[in-house]
Amino acid sequence: MTADALTARRRALLGGAYRLFYEEPVHLVAGNGVWLTDAAGRRYLDAYNNVASVGHCHPHVVEALSRQAATLNTHTRYLHEAVLEYAEALLAYFPPGIGNVMFTCTGSEANDLALRAAKVMTGGTGIIITTNAYHGVTELTACLSPSLGSGAPKGRDIYHVDAPDPLRDGDMDGSQFARRVADAIARMRADGVTLCALLVDTLFSSDGIQPQPLGALRLAADEIHAAGGLFIADEVQAGLGRCGSHMWGFLRQGARADLVTMGKPLGDGHPIGAVAARPEIFDAFGERSRYFNTFGGNPVSARVGMAVLDVIRQERLMDNAAIVGQAMTDAVSALRRDFPALVDVRSTGLYMGAELCDSETKLPDPARASAVVNLMRQRGVLISASGPGGNVLKIRPPLVFGLEHVGILVDCLAGALRDTV
Amino acid sequence: MTADALTARRRALLGGAYRLFYEEPVHLVAGNGVWLTDAAGRRYLDAYNNVASVGHCHPHVVEALSRQAATLNTHTRYLHEAVLEYAEALLAYFPPGIGNVMFTCTGSEANDLALRAAKVMTGGTGIIITTNAYHGVTELTACLSPSLGSGAPKGRDIYHVDAPDPLRDGDMDGSQFARRVADAIARMRADGVTLCALLVDTLFSSDGIQPQPLGALRLAADEIHAAGGLFIADEVQAGLGRCGSHMWGFLRQGARADLVTMGKPLGDGHPIGAVAARPEIFDAFGERSRYFNTFGGNPVSARVGMAVLDVIRQERLMDNAAIVGQAMTDAVSALRRDFPALVDVRSTGLYMGAELCDSETKLPDPARASAVVNLMRQRGVLISASGPGGNVLKIRPPLVFGLEHVGILVDCLAGALRDTV
Repeated sequence: MTADALTARRRALLGGAYRLFYEEPVHLVAGNGVWLTDAAGRRYLDAYNNVASVGHCHPHVVEALSRQAATLNTHTRYLHEAVLEYAEALLAYFPPGIGNVMFTCTGSEANDLALRAAKVMTGGTGIIITTNAYHGVTELTACLSPSLGSGAPKGRDIYHVDAPDPLRDGDMDGSQFARRVADAIARMRADGVTLCALLVDTLFSSDGIQPQPLGALRLAADEIHAAGGLFIADEVQAGLGRCGSHMWGFLRQGARADLVTMGKPLGDGHPIGAVAARPEIFDAFGERSRYFNTFGGNPVSARVGMAVLDVIRQERLMDNAAIVGQAMTDAVSALRRDFPALVDVRSTGLYMGAELCDSETKLPDPARASAVVNLMRQRGVLISASGPGGNVLKIRPPLVFGLEHVGILVDCLAGALRDTV
Repeated sequence: MTADALTARRRALLGGAYRLFYEEPVHLVAGNGVWLTDAAGRRYLDAYNNVASVGHCHPHVVEALSRQAATLNTHTRYLHEAVLEYAEALLAYFPPGIGNVMFTCTGSEANDLALRAAKVMTGGTGIIITTNAYHGVTELTACLSPSLGSGAPKGRDIYHVDAPDPLRDGDMDGSQFARRVADAIARMRADGVTLCALLVDTLFSSDGIQPQPLGALRLAADEIHAAGGLFIADEVQAGLGRCGSHMWGFLRQGARADLVTMGKPLGDGHPIGAVAARPEIFDAFGERSRYFNTFGGNPVSARVGMAVLDVIRQERLMDNAAIVGQAMTDAVSALRRDFPALVDVRSTGLYMGAELCDSETKLPDPARASAVVNLMRQRGVLISASGPGGNVLKIRPPLVFGLEHVGILVDCLAGALRDTV
């Protein structure tokens, strides 16, 4: 079946809310490491998918999945070692104060649960998020996801702050971002709303990918704590070693988090989400509510999550993210000499935002970004574009991306920049 | 590690919101068909778990899972046949008007999405649910789940109606239930709230399992439609052939559904949820909002869901549910002669509620129900208790439950009734 026929069949079966990547969608049939193969047998270098965190179809993960699925798959209302071993292994990557973890199936469910627990703990309802945030697709988290557009549901007691954007706001130490958070707290007080939490993607992914300035989240979390609120670090994008220097984005920022939400990369494609927290928070929540997630933390998911942690440790993927990410940053930054439209290259580990603006007006150039993304797809390298202006190239490969892949990516990017205007 | 040590370690790692089944929790290590095995090598007959719909670790499902996980696992922003084949196969089990399906990872996400779409479609916010409903654990669906107890979050514009309970309300044709729905619509109007939807578990599972009277949902759906609202059939519990006579509970009731939500049994343990709907509803939703669920409908989930449908068809499990369910109903009903505390046995297919009341006062006897459940667990048969009074034995085995298992279950139940007072 041709891609056009598949697209039409998809529209007829799945309805109007689904979207495909690329002007010419990719019809994939196989994946291995950082490579994807389409129906015509053509290979694509995957420089986009963080869900396949340790590489597509990693054999250690597939084996853990297959073995446990053939042995037992029940739920957390029976005792099973796997969920405990996984909980222990995951919590070992957190500071001592974060002592509990609960399991869900998706990052949306994780953010939804964290917010429910934060509301019980604080008795507050006021949530601070960034102006172009994305935190999920449940009704509650969609209300906290203005990046979904004007059609997203509107919630109450939600306060927006602009994400750091040092290129434009000159905030070099995070004090401006912290001041915006303090202002939001003050506005909330003036409205008679009780503060609950600051919820932030620790790399500000949908706000254009803003890894700098490093102090921003530490200072903002301090403001929230001083006002009696909680800091929820959304690590669905930044977490699990992607930053290179730290396992989680909030640690990289030196921030003190009360709740930490996880999702996409945890299961190398298998549906796993989690919320880690200070035990007092889940105790307060547990006194009010029991929580049962049918599939969350089941033996198969737990073994898969554990296998992903194994691979990250055994293959030193956090070090790899740091080393390969630096090489990638150096190489893409070097393109700025030839392509002045590339106004900013910002990254940490294997997560990069590369911003394209009109060379004369200096305004965001989403058309150029889209052209680059689509041309690279035609030439066999998968990336995307993001940010409030749609002009930030989003480069976020599996953590097994190597130096040899950086060369392919950067050559392709350079060619696409050359051949688009 | 002993069960006590595991329980303590669990409390320390997972926090205060988790609950275990049984006074003496079961520590499971393996599953096969309707049998589960604990760490001491003891086997239990599983007469409770609908998630393992086609039996624990069904080899056809495990093989589909393992093969696809080793080949490719991405998401719905690329083209892939699997999600389309699964969507077609699933939609073939619905009436022609239900022409679209969207995929999530859990039943909670499915109900949450259905409600978001219903709100967009109707422009209304008023939701009617049953008094002891359960629809999920996201904030929105927890607000619609009074069975979670007084600690569950409170939502706005939610109207309760008592589920049918012919034993007490004498409603033999569903007209009383429909009148309650009509009353709720009238109360909503009086409050100035615009009607959105009636959301009901089509077997009223958490309301005590009420398969009768058969007209209730048809009449109630007619009331909702006449008032301009939508009927959302929650098939997370009742669906996928469990009723024996029909694939879905709403069809068994002859009701016209606008949205149908699915979860637990779809993946034989793998996290799959779905919402089927009239295409106009998803089109209206899609015009306002894009929807992307990272793991929902991915190639692995789609292959697993398809494998479950294969097994249901090839092993004629809907027929099995009808035949074995009838035998189970006859045998449990026969126990009423010797045990007057067993005041009602109600069922359809392989979903039974058996109500225990004090023989003299006729009041619900949750202590007896709990004693029976725990004694049966000691003796190697797993069931549970449910309902607003906690006195309804909930018997809901995998669909591969056979006549030979009915004998074991009923003997164990008879013994437990004999040995508890």
